[in-house]
Amino acid sequence: MVTKIIELKKPRLKNPIFIEGLPGVGNVGRIAAGYLAEELKAVKFAELLSSHFMPFVLLHQTSAVHVLKNEFYYWKAKRKGQRDLIILIGDSQSTNQEGHYEIVETILNYIKKFGVKEIFTLAGLSVGEQVKEPKVVGAVSHPELVKKYAKYGIDFDSGGKIGTIVGASGLLIGLGKYHGMKGVCLLGETAGFPIIPDHRSAEALLKVLIKILNIKIDTSKIERKVREMEEFMKKVESVQLKAISQLLKAQREKPKEEKLSYIG
Amino acid sequence: MVTKIIELKKPRLKNPIFIEGLPGVGNVGRIAAGYLAEELKAVKFAELLSSHFMPFVLLHQTSAVHVLKNEFYYWKAKRKGQRDLIILIGDSQSTNQEGHYEIVETILNYIKKFGVKEIFTLAGLSVGEQVKEPKVVGAVSHPELVKKYAKYGIDFDSGGKIGTIVGASGLLIGLGKYHGMKGVCLLGETAGFPIIPDHRSAEALLKVLIKILNIKIDTSKIERKVREMEEFMKKVESVQLKAISQLLKAQREKPKEEKLSYIG
Amino acid sequence: MVTKIIELKKPRLKNPIFIEGLPGVGNVGRIAAGYLAEELKAVKFAELLSSHFMPFVLLHQTSAVHVLKNEFYYWKAKRKGQRDLIILIGDSQSTNQEGHYEIVETILNYIKKFGVKEIFTLAGLSVGEQVKEPKVVGAVSHPELVKKYAKYGIDFDSGGKIGTIVGASGLLIGLGKYHGMKGVCLLGETAGFPIIPDHRSAEALLKVLIKILNIKIDTSKIERKVREMEEFMKKVESVQLKAISQLLKAQREKPKEEKLSYIG
Amino acid sequence: MVTKIIELKKPRLKNPIFIEGLPGVGNVGRIAAGYLAEELKAVKFAELLSSHFMPFVLLHQTSAVHVLKNEFYYWKAKRKGQRDLIILIGDSQSTNQEGHYEIVETILNYIKKFGVKEIFTLAGLSVGEQVKEPKVVGAVSHPELVKKYAKYGIDFDSGGKIGTIVGASGLLIGLGKYHGMKGVCLLGETAGFPIIPDHRSAEALLKVLIKILNIKIDTSKIERKVREMEEFMKKVESVQLKAISQLLKAQREKPKEEKLSYIG
Repeated sequence: MVTKIIELKKPRLKNPIFIEGLPGVGNVGRIAAGYLAEELKAVKFAELLSSHFMPFVLLHQTSAVHVLKNEFYYWKAKRKGQRDLIILIGDSQSTNQEGHYEIVETILNYIKKFGVKEIFTLAGLSVGEQVKEPKVVGAVSHPELVKKYAKYGIDFDSGGKIGTIVGASGLLIGLGKYHGMKGVCLLGETAGFPIIPDHRSAEALLKVLIKILNIKIDTSKIERKVREMEEFMKKVESVQLKAISQLLKAQREKPKEEKLSYIG
Repeated sequence: MVTKIIELKKPRLKNPIFIEGLPGVGNVGRIAAGYLAEELKAVKFAELLSSHFMPFVLLHQTSAVHVLKNEFYYWKAKRKGQRDLIILIGDSQSTNQEGHYEIVETILNYIKKFGVKEIFTLAGLSVGEQVKEPKVVGAVSHPELVKKYAKYGIDFDSGGKIGTIVGASGLLIGLGKYHGMKGVCLLGETAGFPIIPDHRSAEALLKVLIKILNIKIDTSKIERKVREMEEFMKKVESVQLKAISQLLKAQREKPKEEKLSYIG
Repeated sequence: MVTKIIELKKPRLKNPIFIEGLPGVGNVGRIAAGYLAEELKAVKFAELLSSHFMPFVLLHQTSAVHVLKNEFYYWKAKRKGQRDLIILIGDSQSTNQEGHYEIVETILNYIKKFGVKEIFTLAGLSVGEQVKEPKVVGAVSHPELVKKYAKYGIDFDSGGKIGTIVGASGLLIGLGKYHGMKGVCLLGETAGFPIIPDHRSAEALLKVLIKILNIKIDTSKIERKVREMEEFMKKVESVQLKAISQLLKAQREKPKEEKLSYIG
Repeated sequence: MVTKIIELKKPRLKNPIFIEGLPGVGNVGRIAAGYLAEELKAVKFAELLSSHFMPFVLLHQTSAVHVLKNEFYYWKAKRKGQRDLIILIGDSQSTNQEGHYEIVETILNYIKKFGVKEIFTLAGLSVGEQVKEPKVVGAVSHPELVKKYAKYGIDFDSGGKIGTIVGASGLLIGLGKYHGMKGVCLLGETAGFPIIPDHRSAEALLKVLIKILNIKIDTSKIERKVREMEEFMKKVESVQLKAISQLLKAQREKPKEEKLSYIG
């Protein structure tokens, strides 16, 4: 299977901006993008499945299951000064190195068909301690973007201190360049340890993003929403770990010794 | 090689139901499906080989060998109210994450050719302690299936408590949805530790399944059969572990120090 | 690259028998097949390269290098009652599970072009202690082969005690069946620990094999040859381990702490 | 994605020599090739991206990012007795075994289009202790090259003592042979532990190389350059390790125990 996109609808979008928020440090990007999609009543139009996600299904309260996936939503601009949006959220990122490249290339090839030229990726920046007023740090695909976006309260002076951006948020803007796309990665400061959803950091991200996108949404409900999502997210993480450890245990378990000789 | 299906016969089947029982926790699914195929005198018509299985052959008492494989059997309905069946059993599941996806997709693409629209997967549900009267817990691909199958004594209220279904039993119904198939995963409660074949849980599964399928088989011989199968299954597990540890040991073994310089 | 065969010559062979001897427990198969090829003055006609071998080159005394490879030799029958032979020897087997399947399938597809219908694979059978007079144990692709070859002094009664045959020797006869080939795996008993070339076991194998092949070679020089080969084999193993540990160490080494924040 | 080359320019080169210097022990090859490209004012004409590199982007001081990559530069001969050059430098080698083969084959197939027949790869040779006057040790694809290059002060007598050359420097000359190319690997002696850029060893390499290439560059600035590059290189290594450990930690972290049962 590897990685594939299942298209549910074929929206007609005009010069859309692409926004990514997948699980990561503090789930900051996932929360911000998920909240944005919900508040905008964005419409799901495609799903991405991948053998680079864990090989299990998640059970809902209803006893229905779904495989791990990423989901594409679209939103059409309501008034002048706004732009059509494609928002990507999901259950998981690749669980292995090469899968990150494959999934990101699949996403870029797909959104290119809709004419995407601009990308915003949302992620957490682990600073090792609780932050009361989390800063939003920025990284860009092209140096000239710094000037364009500095006015939105993004800290572009930390490039020297920060080493890398790991996973989809980094690769989407790094590889997007080769697809003719310009990208900004917005990083919300967060403790980063332990892995708990950080609504404050997500809210900081979102405030910057909606200013850029010229849209208005009420960010005050984000804390409550996070608490609702938290339950489900914790479950995913928990079972993911259970699954891994179970798989490992199964292989480690000592069988009763039999009179078997090894042949090689 | 990756994954391929070798077709031995081309059965003509009418609207068949697909049943999967591969090795897993307590080997519950494997026992139930194997017993069903045997009692029905189902006919083998295809084999699935995969490089995601361990790279060894199993030796039989006769000194003949076979590579690890999964096997497709068919059974044709004998009377009204019954349906043709395809039953999948086998030696192994994928030993790596991505292989699970690949093997399940290969299976789904193959059974789709026979017009399969309904899937039952059989698995064990580890509850951490011996259970005298194991319940059969259900998970579904589509919420509406709960109502349809609740009457067969399946517990559909544990969805909230259970997190995931790992491996083929979960993915077949989770990915089957994308192939136009509806699926139910039947999970027999079992201790889950240590990994010993649990005939009681398998029998509980089977009783529910044959009611759904509207067939009659004598489930009383299952304990004896399990004891017969147990010998072989233990061997597979045992050598699988031996093989793994031998491979690891070979790489860990310290060679005599020579005057060799490392170059990089 | 994955796996590919570089053909150096195109020999015309008549109904050839295929013999495999690659590195494994005690290097028994490798020694026996290598000695056979040398004594018969068999001619190299193809090389197999694979990305499933370790990613390094071996240095010879001359400062020339070669990548790890497997080599195909042929020998044409000299008189009636003999058969043309293809002999496979080499530096390495796959270092990962899936590579074993890929390499074996590549070999089978290649030798099929020469009309190979019969396979003999040579391997060591680890019995955990020094054996003065090592037995040759047999495993077969088809039960009827037992009767045909029992007269050559092969022990076909150990099938029940032995669990598996790991790697190329097992898979070649197990998968060969699906290519219309019949195969026998000859396993020479050897201590198996530590991994030292076992010339006695190799000689036992060879004596059985040449009887089957109806050829005469002097097996008395095998001990001396092994001592010559040993030097080189030890080096390969040694550097293989050095390389692995160096790669691991490089990744484990602690860099100086800098003011870097992790971003996810 | 796997591995791909993005061509920025299409230089017309005449019988060019290919020189490789990628990160490795002591970064000796990387430093030497990088310094050579810079001093010659060689022109970048292609980039190689690969999913076998780590899945992250590197942040520059400017807050701009780039994905890990290898870069091809060309230089055109200025006078008689010189040859056109293709120089390969980069951020990373493959982080896994199979990727080494794939990347090296991609490189060989690419440079073959420019008519490359000769290769020089630059690497470090770890000798376990500081060396005041590092020797340059040589390995060759074809034995006859020893005679041709011995006069340049390369030590070709260590072939017996050295076991292997791991990674791109070894595979390029080992596999290059199958593409009709002749290659020499130049190995600068270096402590090898800890991994610090060794400008002395790089300088020794470079002095040999420019004699062979019949070009003149000032090698005295190499120490200063190395100190400038060091800062960036350390960062790459540091974040690479941080990223790995972070990924591992995320998977190891214990979630709060919930009433979840594992299903298999």
